[in-house]
Amino acid sequence: MFEIDGGICAVEGVEASGVKEEGSGLALIRARGLCTGMFTKNRFMAPPLIVCKEKLGKTGGKFSGIVISSGNANSYTGSEGIEDAREMARFAAECMGIPEDETLVSSTGIIGRRLDMKLIKRQIEKVAQTLEHGKEGAHRAAEAILTTDREKKEVAVEVGEGKNRVVVGGMAKGAGMVYPNMATMLAFIFTDAPLSPSTLKECLKQSVDKSFHMLTIDGDMSTNDMVLLTTVSNRREDIPQVKENFTKGLEYVCVELAKMMAKGAEGATTLITVEVRGASSLEDARKSARTIANSTLLKTAVYGRDPNWGRIVAALGYSGARASPDTLSIAIADVWVVKSGEIQNFDYEELKKKMDCDEVKITVDLGCGKYSAVAWGCDLSEEYVRINSEFST
Amino acid sequence: MFEIDGGICAVEGVEASGVKEEGSGLALIRARGLCTGMFTKNRFMAPPLIVCKEKLGKTGGKFSGIVISSGNANSYTGSEGIEDAREMARFAAECMGIPEDETLVSSTGIIGRRLDMKLIKRQIEKVAQTLEHGKEGAHRAAEAILTTDREKKEVAVEVGEGKNRVVVGGMAKGAGMVYPNMATMLAFIFTDAPLSPSTLKECLKQSVDKSFHMLTIDGDMSTNDMVLLTTVSNRREDIPQVKENFTKGLEYVCVELAKMMAKGAEGATTLITVEVRGASSLEDARKSARTIANSTLLKTAVYGRDPNWGRIVAALGYSGARASPDTLSIAIADVWVVKSGEIQNFDYEELKKKMDCDEVKITVDLGCGKYSAVAWGCDLSEEYVRINSEFST
Repeated sequence: MFEIDGGICAVEGVEASGVKEEGSGLALIRARGLCTGMFTKNRFMAPPLIVCKEKLGKTGGKFSGIVISSGNANSYTGSEGIEDAREMARFAAECMGIPEDETLVSSTGIIGRRLDMKLIKRQIEKVAQTLEHGKEGAHRAAEAILTTDREKKEVAVEVGEGKNRVVVGGMAKGAGMVYPNMATMLAFIFTDAPLSPSTLKECLKQSVDKSFHMLTIDGDMSTNDMVLLTTVSNRREDIPQVKENFTKGLEYVCVELAKMMAKGAEGATTLITVEVRGASSLEDARKSARTIANSTLLKTAVYGRDPNWGRIVAALGYSGARASPDTLSIAIADVWVVKSGEIQNFDYEELKKKMDCDEVKITVDLGCGKYSAVAWGCDLSEEYVRINSEFST
Repeated sequence: MFEIDGGICAVEGVEASGVKEEGSGLALIRARGLCTGMFTKNRFMAPPLIVCKEKLGKTGGKFSGIVISSGNANSYTGSEGIEDAREMARFAAECMGIPEDETLVSSTGIIGRRLDMKLIKRQIEKVAQTLEHGKEGAHRAAEAILTTDREKKEVAVEVGEGKNRVVVGGMAKGAGMVYPNMATMLAFIFTDAPLSPSTLKECLKQSVDKSFHMLTIDGDMSTNDMVLLTTVSNRREDIPQVKENFTKGLEYVCVELAKMMAKGAEGATTLITVEVRGASSLEDARKSARTIANSTLLKTAVYGRDPNWGRIVAALGYSGARASPDTLSIAIADVWVVKSGEIQNFDYEELKKKMDCDEVKITVDLGCGKYSAVAWGCDLSEEYVRINSEFST
């Protein structure tokens, strides 16, 4: 497996483009394929997601294209919001020359405001004329969907060779209001792998469980989260080797996008990777890794380059995972500070220096089983507070 | 019911004192009575709490006094930590001239370090000599248990008249690592009400559910939380009118202490009170109020005096409580921004100004039932980040 250029357009047949303006952005993607999606578990699911679920249900997952707007989430906008989402998709379908039923819609941004449909239609018209199957188009689309994100998030990989060769490419946004199941995050992933609908669905769930569901930025779950996975292949067979390659590629793409989100989170200076090993169940491994990554106090400690492992102990203790003080080991930036319950002598100043980089790894061995999991988060800085006390309704 | 002076020493027979030094503090309380406690649900319960639970179990709740140290939590210190806690209680009992079995122990501060027993013993000896039944003693004790708290937290009330008159007095600490069940919070409450052990226990649970369990500062639950309630009365009857007065007084004391914690939280500039009404169950009312108060994004919005009600909608949506967009109403600082699902026209600048005070009230009416609950939290400022990125192991 190796990374290749081109983001979502690395996948044959995917065309994309986008425009980024002051306070708003719009992207279009055109590709024929079979699509499966995962949507926020927030009770106030936003209108675009309701429309997507409806359409995917009706067509059995047929995908011809999608329009994505940023700046306004079209969330908590009621039946008018649903009308707006439908009209947005209809107009995008018309401009892209594809069936309305197979055109999806997605939005991210401020909650509780009607969309500016005039602006959106102007942007759709403009972007539709620049759709292209090429990395520039993918870049423009990846750029267009950002809000407070600092950098665009796209990645593509090629796995396997010959007739088993599979390409998976994805793009995402997500910088705040990010917490498992899922996040203010949108991710759009494409592949050329020939897969059955059930395999597509199953693989997406498994990869999301290991990536976006293990990502936490501020503990707030948004109303607009969605991940769409589309295969542009029109063959529906599941060849074992292809499926294996695809699974590998998909997981890589999801994890990389999740890490980019944590790294590029609002105000973040450091990616925090929490690996929990030796848990007595997978659920325990996952929930303890997530809880530690989500601890406000750990996040501020990492920001201050302070190896405050007591806060890791506290978070682990309330995570609900089975753990015992006597078998617990903790390493920060590969330095063991606790080993099998024994507090280690470590060079505090040295460790502080090691923590002063853009990625800090926390390793926790519960010593009571064989399960492991990795979660991603980021530190909490004054800058996060600044950004979010100014971002306004 | 009215507030009276004197904190815990407002209760007849309670003697207290304390000393606050650079980086550490120590308080002693002496009073004969019947005690019931609630302890952290964190799996890594700290040694002092283990010792307290043991003693209370053995003696059936007999209380003669307690020693409380601040600066070092004596947490994650293993069997040595348990020995230290026992020795701390033993030495305090000796100095106060009370039975060792009936002397409890509590600590708060940094996790993962052995206590400096020499320092603690020196402080115990000193403080034991200044024990007094008077408000100065109560003040010194309330001051001694603080860590990053900005102000001491004590309150006492008198409820009812004549033979039904009841006094309840309490003191607490808690400024960070604070989240339901319970918090890095210690609370010590005394009363002169003659109550049976079961009533004492039941009343404490009910009051804690409405106060400390509805308090959230940063979502981190500590290893050292405890609330102790002691009645100094040696009568064990439950006179209905007395019980009623006591319940009222206890609830008031717990709520006031919880509010003081939120108001005085690390870096906080504003107390956030979230009242949820119209819920279809008490559990729904409580969890939605808590989830909203705990939303990092709402906390930063309040800090920025930004009436960002979309973040309230998002938090409510992931709280798990039953809610519908169509029946939802939201008010910020008594200004309705959403009414029965309709977004209201409100004067944004005016509301921003109204939010610029030391207490902001969020009212949410779910419009689907008759249950209500109140939760307390505080805003999230750059100062919180500063304090917690510097507070070091």
